[in-house]
Amino acid sequence: MTRTVDLNADMGESFGAWSLGDDAGLLDIVTSANIACGYHAGDPDVMAATMKHAVAKGTGIGAHPGFPDLQGFGRRRMSVPHETLGNMVRYQLGAAQAMARAAGGAVRHLKLHGALANMASEDMAMARACYQAALSVDPEIIVMVLAGTAQQQAAQELGCKTACEIFADRAYNDDATLVDRSLPGAVIHDPAEAGRRMVEMVQEGAIITASGKRIPARIDTICLHGDTPAAVAIAADVRRALQDSGVGLAQFSGAVL
Amino acid sequence: MTRTVDLNADMGESFGAWSLGDDAGLLDIVTSANIACGYHAGDPDVMAATMKHAVAKGTGIGAHPGFPDLQGFGRRRMSVPHETLGNMVRYQLGAAQAMARAAGGAVRHLKLHGALANMASEDMAMARACYQAALSVDPEIIVMVLAGTAQQQAAQELGCKTACEIFADRAYNDDATLVDRSLPGAVIHDPAEAGRRMVEMVQEGAIITASGKRIPARIDTICLHGDTPAAVAIAADVRRALQDSGVGLAQFSGAVL
Amino acid sequence: MTRTVDLNADMGESFGAWSLGDDAGLLDIVTSANIACGYHAGDPDVMAATMKHAVAKGTGIGAHPGFPDLQGFGRRRMSVPHETLGNMVRYQLGAAQAMARAAGGAVRHLKLHGALANMASEDMAMARACYQAALSVDPEIIVMVLAGTAQQQAAQELGCKTACEIFADRAYNDDATLVDRSLPGAVIHDPAEAGRRMVEMVQEGAIITASGKRIPARIDTICLHGDTPAAVAIAADVRRALQDSGVGLAQFSGAVL
Amino acid sequence: MTRTVDLNADMGESFGAWSLGDDAGLLDIVTSANIACGYHAGDPDVMAATMKHAVAKGTGIGAHPGFPDLQGFGRRRMSVPHETLGNMVRYQLGAAQAMARAAGGAVRHLKLHGALANMASEDMAMARACYQAALSVDPEIIVMVLAGTAQQQAAQELGCKTACEIFADRAYNDDATLVDRSLPGAVIHDPAEAGRRMVEMVQEGAIITASGKRIPARIDTICLHGDTPAAVAIAADVRRALQDSGVGLAQFSGAVL
Repeated sequence: MTRTVDLNADMGESFGAWSLGDDAGLLDIVTSANIACGYHAGDPDVMAATMKHAVAKGTGIGAHPGFPDLQGFGRRRMSVPHETLGNMVRYQLGAAQAMARAAGGAVRHLKLHGALANMASEDMAMARACYQAALSVDPEIIVMVLAGTAQQQAAQELGCKTACEIFADRAYNDDATLVDRSLPGAVIHDPAEAGRRMVEMVQEGAIITASGKRIPARIDTICLHGDTPAAVAIAADVRRALQDSGVGLAQFSGAVL
Repeated sequence: MTRTVDLNADMGESFGAWSLGDDAGLLDIVTSANIACGYHAGDPDVMAATMKHAVAKGTGIGAHPGFPDLQGFGRRRMSVPHETLGNMVRYQLGAAQAMARAAGGAVRHLKLHGALANMASEDMAMARACYQAALSVDPEIIVMVLAGTAQQQAAQELGCKTACEIFADRAYNDDATLVDRSLPGAVIHDPAEAGRRMVEMVQEGAIITASGKRIPARIDTICLHGDTPAAVAIAADVRRALQDSGVGLAQFSGAVL
Repeated sequence: MTRTVDLNADMGESFGAWSLGDDAGLLDIVTSANIACGYHAGDPDVMAATMKHAVAKGTGIGAHPGFPDLQGFGRRRMSVPHETLGNMVRYQLGAAQAMARAAGGAVRHLKLHGALANMASEDMAMARACYQAALSVDPEIIVMVLAGTAQQQAAQELGCKTACEIFADRAYNDDATLVDRSLPGAVIHDPAEAGRRMVEMVQEGAIITASGKRIPARIDTICLHGDTPAAVAIAADVRRALQDSGVGLAQFSGAVL
Repeated sequence: MTRTVDLNADMGESFGAWSLGDDAGLLDIVTSANIACGYHAGDPDVMAATMKHAVAKGTGIGAHPGFPDLQGFGRRRMSVPHETLGNMVRYQLGAAQAMARAAGGAVRHLKLHGALANMASEDMAMARACYQAALSVDPEIIVMVLAGTAQQQAAQELGCKTACEIFADRAYNDDATLVDRSLPGAVIHDPAEAGRRMVEMVQEGAIITASGKRIPARIDTICLHGDTPAAVAIAADVRRALQDSGVGLAQFSGAVL
């Protein structure tokens, strides 16, 4: 049986006069792009340019909403009522849809950003509030979730189209959570190792933890980074390793779990 | 022949903890609502609540984009490249569409706000940049223009669905521009007079200037205000005067000029 | 022995086109004003106008920094590193100092706002980070703290000039914390009762809890509110009750605890 | 007679997660730093770090206020009432003063940024509104003006301490205005040429125009840029050329014109 997997990365994270990330480099590697929506990064011009490039490359377009916190890049936790959170997701998703449409494309998936994503991976009610809001705007949208977290549970309960994601460059604990960044080995810096791990996980259909344990998991997409030259190198190596091992690269179709 | 006209007003101009305008009062009067999109006023929660009320009342929903200037309420002129302007319009329109959709409605028209509107009424290229951007998101959207200005010319050239607007409470010069606010008689404060004028203009199909001159004009909608109790009283009187004189009140359908 | 106490209230919470609170009414009642600094409310024009009025009335001027969250009015908790928090406090305090100086006055105290205040009242390290930052800008500034909380402890440790505050309209638990707003009796709506309580607490030098318990506490200032007509009425009644009972009203001088 | 001149550059233009400019490189070259104040660039953390480095290097610290337009980097013209402009300048200057004080330094000069500077160089009333506001906060502040423009006239009329500035990398017209960027030769890319011109202008006490005309001008400081590696190279070459020709490098003291 041939396995296929999607490769995704965050993009469109420049703002005004400030550039960030190697979007052009990443667009040659990934099959799906998570595009910032102006709350934590991105502005209408950056969104328009990123959408245009993604459409030209045939990359799957995703809205990547975050907290309204430009200075903190959406990485600072905020305590926001669920109804307000839902409206923030609707607002950003709608803006992304319009920018995609004007570029001749369409938003097909949604992925939460930064602290919003972290909080939603621990809190199913919060994840549900965000995803329900997105579905109230587009019932066909594919929700991208961190595999094995409360995000996945929320999507499962909602019965919506879902894509489960693992990280190329992060080590996992035996309960499927990520090894804390402060611990040795938490972040994988070796492109070859990152590639090898991803091939194994995709072929086995399991998250392989730092201790070697296998946790069966649905794996639809692999998250890559492009914020540093090293990150783009890892991304390219993961892609090559998957292709060399016969794993197909294709956009997820969004299964109902 | 029975004439009909639409009544519109700006709404959803509260922000966070700050309330502004009597939206509930206006929704009993108008047939179309221009809803702020978060750049000069409004936030996702305010937009959601306003959309919900408009849907419940059957009021026509419009996106009301403005300059990104909350402190200045979008009333300060800004020098923004046309491409950026277009992207700002797309962004705000998309956000409004999503909020409308989640509320069970849809955005059917677009009206520019504040300084953006003033500048576009004097500069056809700028008006065109804004309207083209809106049409790139929704080719069926109805563009609401200030009758007799460069806004109307731009819509005409684009061949898009258009609704032409006059003001209930502002006196006109003989060239169809508004009498400067600093001059006596520029703003009509008498509800009875405002009502009488609107009946006349709609029945004659002409803008009647301060000097009494008739300028033939397409009149699809009348702009009312709701920022003060006096404004709501004028709005109510204009509605009553139109109904008493046999003018029908109905949403514009958006003619191609 | 004659007791004196200060009366303080939050002010300058309008923003752009949006008005909030009855600053003029409050300035006839209070002896100290906590003026918003543009992060959660207030803008340079509002600050300038509020400073001018406070200077004209001889009211003590305080900087009232909050989280950078206009939509949430600084009431949403945010997870911000202490160093960044300190810089946010410095920035807002400096802005307030400049506006005060231009109005012929000076900032003499600092009070944290909203969620920033709530978090600092539970977390001494966070309170210290904020107060140290303020002291690095003005070593003579008087820090206004919630009596009996971690805020007071932090000020005590820093050895800075301090003013301890109680609330006119909130009931207290037996551990000096505030009764949760969701419980009956948490908020005092009766002006006469609010006045009576404040006189008692000031004369006894103790927080009197809902159960009647006395917790000895330094009381330098009483927090009043002005966001509703009812709140201004309570504020006026508290002032009258204190004066009628012989308590003097005067700005705190800032004791080192 | 030994001539001395100051070298200045804009700094602290990073924001949140976004880096901009080579501040470290520039601090080895300039004698004065114009530090962004959070409206068009910079945030409290960036300001704190920049102030700290400037203090460590002994660089003269300037506040560099701009329009409240982060996306546009303060380069988009805005129509703002003079009173509001003044309050914006006060606010940003105060914030900068606090950050400087906390870093062990002090703001000694003020330079307007971007579109605010361009507009003020053409409009003396606007320049005066900005400078008066700054002087109302600190009567001893040195106002840095574009030599020969309405900025200089405004400072002259106000009788405040002033430093006159010329550009290292821009060609001048015969009326002392800058050659439009769209014309050939408007921007000087050759480090050697930039250095030679600056030596000549400083030694002759005149702006030398593209046609070779000499316009006598007070020259207190030379504006350098650091937004590209090439810009830093030019900056270094200008410094070297001045030193080689015996021109002293020292902070301006701010003459009353």
